[in-house]
Amino acid sequence: MRKSIALDMDEVIANVTPKFLDIYEKHYGKRLSKADYWGKKIYQIEGAMNIRETLHEKGFFRDLPIMEGSQEGVRKLMEDYEVYITTAAQEFKYSLEDKYDWLQEHFPFIHWKQFVFCGDKSILGMDYMIDDHVHNLQTFRGKGLLFSASHNIHETEFTRVNNWAEVLAFFANEKT
Amino acid sequence: MRKSIALDMDEVIANVTPKFLDIYEKHYGKRLSKADYWGKKIYQIEGAMNIRETLHEKGFFRDLPIMEGSQEGVRKLMEDYEVYITTAAQEFKYSLEDKYDWLQEHFPFIHWKQFVFCGDKSILGMDYMIDDHVHNLQTFRGKGLLFSASHNIHETEFTRVNNWAEVLAFFANEKT
Repeated sequence: MRKSIALDMDEVIANVTPKFLDIYEKHYGKRLSKADYWGKKIYQIEGAMNIRETLHEKGFFRDLPIMEGSQEGVRKLMEDYEVYITTAAQEFKYSLEDKYDWLQEHFPFIHWKQFVFCGDKSILGMDYMIDDHVHNLQTFRGKGLLFSASHNIHETEFTRVNNWAEVLAFFANEKT
Repeated sequence: MRKSIALDMDEVIANVTPKFLDIYEKHYGKRLSKADYWGKKIYQIEGAMNIRETLHEKGFFRDLPIMEGSQEGVRKLMEDYEVYITTAAQEFKYSLEDKYDWLQEHFPFIHWKQFVFCGDKSILGMDYMIDDHVHNLQTFRGKGLLFSASHNIHETEFTRVNNWAEVLAFFANEKT
């Protein structure tokens, strides 16, 4: 039986940062530099917590840019693994259809049978997980890979992958 | 740690049959009796396959009646178990929001963190599963309970529960 991978969406195949930079600029009239939000999420910047509310709006997750290298990366992983898209979508009702449509548009080669929209990832039984949140990896029983994002740069508990080239290098190494 | 239950929606907590009886009657001008659809799904009746398409319509899953005894039953199970609502929703895009709203209306005591909308239930790692589909129980690694529905009455592979009273009786027995 082929091994399976639980692959996160936001900050792993969908790039949320550019959208939050736009929203921040619209609200506060300032374009943030990397130094401003390094080590945290953009809405964790002092005084900016209210922009997290935009996650509840219809359409937020529909037009996110694709993370660089992720389409080719997922295709490559699918040659050897069962790849599931596992996203903690349930906090945001409107994200459900938006994420579904986004996946159908940008990753049409992934069957809907492989989509898992959940609230708590501790229930997942895959062999590997690729995620930007340490709390998801901490409750996972398989091998967890931490995909680098501004908010997790200080974490050292898990194997880190900085980009999709490093994801593929990790799995190439697993085969040998 | 408390044990966990993967609880299906359709035909277990949501009653799909009355809706399909109405749709069949609207299309074919005949109110079906139990004998007409016993041993199958209503849309598996000869010539009626096209009414399965209504599952893709916005709203189909929004106004289903509640399965008798399921609200009290779920409340009772939640005293001793982590109950997850696990539904193979992904074939039907519009079911995602409809099911979300239905759960919020009829089971507001279940947190969204406990909702799992997936395509393929083989990825679930709970201890128990309550489901009306044998194919979901067959790929499940925990203990599976088959909730009786017209289409599964001839199945003998799994422990059968005919209604919510029998679900509760089964779990009462697990504690002793």
